[in-house]
Amino acid sequence: MKNNHIVEGFSKLTKNEKLRLLSGSFRNPAQIEFMLRSFWHVDPDRQKLFDEFSENTISNFYFPFGIAPNFVINGKMYMVPMVIEESSVIAAASSSAKFWSEKGGFHSEVLSTVKIGQVHFIWKGDFEQLRTSFPEIKKLLLERTHPLTANMVKRGGGILDIELVDHTKELENYYQLKATFDTRDSMGANFINSCLEEFADILREYIAESYLFEEQDLQIIMSILSNYTPDCLVHSYVECDISECKDFDEAIAADDFVYKFEKAVQIAQVDIHRATTHNKGIFNGIDAVALATGNDFRAIEACGHAYASRDGQYKSLSEISLKDGKFRYSLTVPLSMGTVGGLTSLHPLARLSLELLGNPEAPELMKIASCVGLANNFGALKSLTTKGIQKGHMKMHLLNILNVFDSDEEEKKKAIHYFKHEKVSYSSVSKLLTELRLQGKPQL
Amino acid sequence: MKNNHIVEGFSKLTKNEKLRLLSGSFRNPAQIEFMLRSFWHVDPDRQKLFDEFSENTISNFYFPFGIAPNFVINGKMYMVPMVIEESSVIAAASSSAKFWSEKGGFHSEVLSTVKIGQVHFIWKGDFEQLRTSFPEIKKLLLERTHPLTANMVKRGGGILDIELVDHTKELENYYQLKATFDTRDSMGANFINSCLEEFADILREYIAESYLFEEQDLQIIMSILSNYTPDCLVHSYVECDISECKDFDEAIAADDFVYKFEKAVQIAQVDIHRATTHNKGIFNGIDAVALATGNDFRAIEACGHAYASRDGQYKSLSEISLKDGKFRYSLTVPLSMGTVGGLTSLHPLARLSLELLGNPEAPELMKIASCVGLANNFGALKSLTTKGIQKGHMKMHLLNILNVFDSDEEEKKKAIHYFKHEKVSYSSVSKLLTELRLQGKPQL
Repeated sequence: MKNNHIVEGFSKLTKNEKLRLLSGSFRNPAQIEFMLRSFWHVDPDRQKLFDEFSENTISNFYFPFGIAPNFVINGKMYMVPMVIEESSVIAAASSSAKFWSEKGGFHSEVLSTVKIGQVHFIWKGDFEQLRTSFPEIKKLLLERTHPLTANMVKRGGGILDIELVDHTKELENYYQLKATFDTRDSMGANFINSCLEEFADILREYIAESYLFEEQDLQIIMSILSNYTPDCLVHSYVECDISECKDFDEAIAADDFVYKFEKAVQIAQVDIHRATTHNKGIFNGIDAVALATGNDFRAIEACGHAYASRDGQYKSLSEISLKDGKFRYSLTVPLSMGTVGGLTSLHPLARLSLELLGNPEAPELMKIASCVGLANNFGALKSLTTKGIQKGHMKMHLLNILNVFDSDEEEKKKAIHYFKHEKVSYSSVSKLLTELRLQGKPQL
Repeated sequence: MKNNHIVEGFSKLTKNEKLRLLSGSFRNPAQIEFMLRSFWHVDPDRQKLFDEFSENTISNFYFPFGIAPNFVINGKMYMVPMVIEESSVIAAASSSAKFWSEKGGFHSEVLSTVKIGQVHFIWKGDFEQLRTSFPEIKKLLLERTHPLTANMVKRGGGILDIELVDHTKELENYYQLKATFDTRDSMGANFINSCLEEFADILREYIAESYLFEEQDLQIIMSILSNYTPDCLVHSYVECDISECKDFDEAIAADDFVYKFEKAVQIAQVDIHRATTHNKGIFNGIDAVALATGNDFRAIEACGHAYASRDGQYKSLSEISLKDGKFRYSLTVPLSMGTVGGLTSLHPLARLSLELLGNPEAPELMKIASCVGLANNFGALKSLTTKGIQKGHMKMHLLNILNVFDSDEEEKKKAIHYFKHEKVSYSSVSKLLTELRLQGKPQL
């Protein structure tokens, strides 16, 4: 980086100008520019679409787009598109999907699909009076947002309710309009935010203009949807006879496996250090589906982890039950996802992902994503409690390590064969390659 | 989707076979295959690299790779690479960066860089005896993992400590080896997991072979790093005179702005619904940097949100202080990131991102990512507490909406002009386009 001064008006430069300015800060500008251009889509119109998703775009960042086949969910078979940079996530999902496909598959149910938005305000007036007027105010809020909500109502959704909430115990003079929404197949952010900003204007005006209130200055702090949607909830599970929990790569008795698996889940219920990693494994799967379908993974992550802490102690989102000889593993997670709006239909591969899944409605996508999360979690615990994570993970990572050392196809073949029965690590791969390359040298 | 039977050996198919099988489940296989291929990189060797990052890869999923210029962090200027699909995130980061660049920029300090790993085990023996033997066991654990740690020690890192922790109060007979690590510039997952699996073997053998213990069966449940790293912590802040908090798009007095901003932060301290969304905005920025540099955003998200709940109530990660006429806004967040290993050097654009940032060591990347998170959070609150989020966000989203309606360049130009002073929504865009297209029709 050679640049050390403020860049003025960067966003107003053309893409080519941005590219040139950026490349100019490298030692090898032409090479950098060439590389960045090499990631552009061959069709300029399509590339323009990607450029317009975000700001100051100069290229596309590639993530592997892969497929986890054999997901049986509520009796229906899915090939699930997954976008993820971490090796072994798709392999683990696929392997769990296959295992459970022979045991009735995944079962999933959407418990509720309520979204939430809030108008946060500060008011120093008489709350009792406001509370008394609220039915009238609420009527106004609903009526006056009709132009905004008409389309959503046509689709079967809209505003479900608006509450006035007193939060003055937590913060002086702080109240909320807390509204609930049904946004059908859209994630609903724009719809909710538009309604809320309108609510805020109406409320402020009502207070300012009504002769009822002595304190007419109601201060809107902000109006915004909440990503915390504990009532947009999906429950998924797998179930089989305990005796069927076997036939993994390693010989381990079903009872022993189930015992260790149960302990692993219980540990994630009591220890935050383990719970965090445990849930991270769930979101490996959920996020991969979210990415593939154009959904916002930050919203999903924030909600899921906040939900994991709802009892005052952060813990596992998945639960195990062993009763009547049955192994049942379940996941309950809030998931606000959309199958229309946002990038879902704009990004050609997000659209293709949704088509591959049979153009699901939002609740069906919630089910699919949560089952993939459960599958990844099951796969991680299966590996951890049997052969350990490193063996499988490092095998999956072997090709990446070989690529670090610029291995050719011949070397890759030999290395894959060699590491069938050896531990993969950077140093062991390095050692093998050194040996192979010495052997390959012509003997003088 | 026509497929409804279990696919056997999918992972063993070639990429072309997978592509064909997948496309075959669509109504228009040739078109789907052509589209998926159109996203492949033009250089087959480079494409192979992407294929090998993950499993069952059939194409690349594009995310916009953009630049937020003008980040001044500890007096150094950065152009920050960001990868994010959500419109307005890069614009908000850039705008905050510019604002603060004129007020001393961002200040950031890494408080600690300790990573954690655990061997979870169940043991029914006499804990006092185990505790007494632990110094000897620990010595063994350190000695015998020497071949694994030698390289890391050379780089200045390694195992920091190993504790024996009694968790029997939480779960019967449950103990941990809790180890701390310094993994230098790598995220360290493979290093930590390899050490832990070795610890587990050594511990189990020690107990099984020692004549000291009556109970010789120590059951390893699992050995795995923790993504919860509260001691891998970075603190960042911005600061200026309260009177300087102005000159935003909207005319608002500095005192009024600061008052509302403070309330917005306080609300995120007391209300989980707001805290979740507030922190989501922080991770918009952090994740965009993580993605651009080949870091694992699921690990970062899980850790950050679990940390936000550490006091028993999930709350804002950022804090405000108003003292002596100063506005100070800070973020303290655990961030385990790497600048070597994993995809950081394998993904050509991740490597380029790191080069653009001046090839930082891991602590410097922690600082950069956290400052971008703080910038995005500041930008979000600034919009929310002044003009509202919809105005800016929907303007950014306008091009996406126009693309949904397949607008041509002429229409886009007219729409951008029209919406300079009008509210953007799907229906308002649709209405405008309908009018434009009616006007454009030849009059018969």
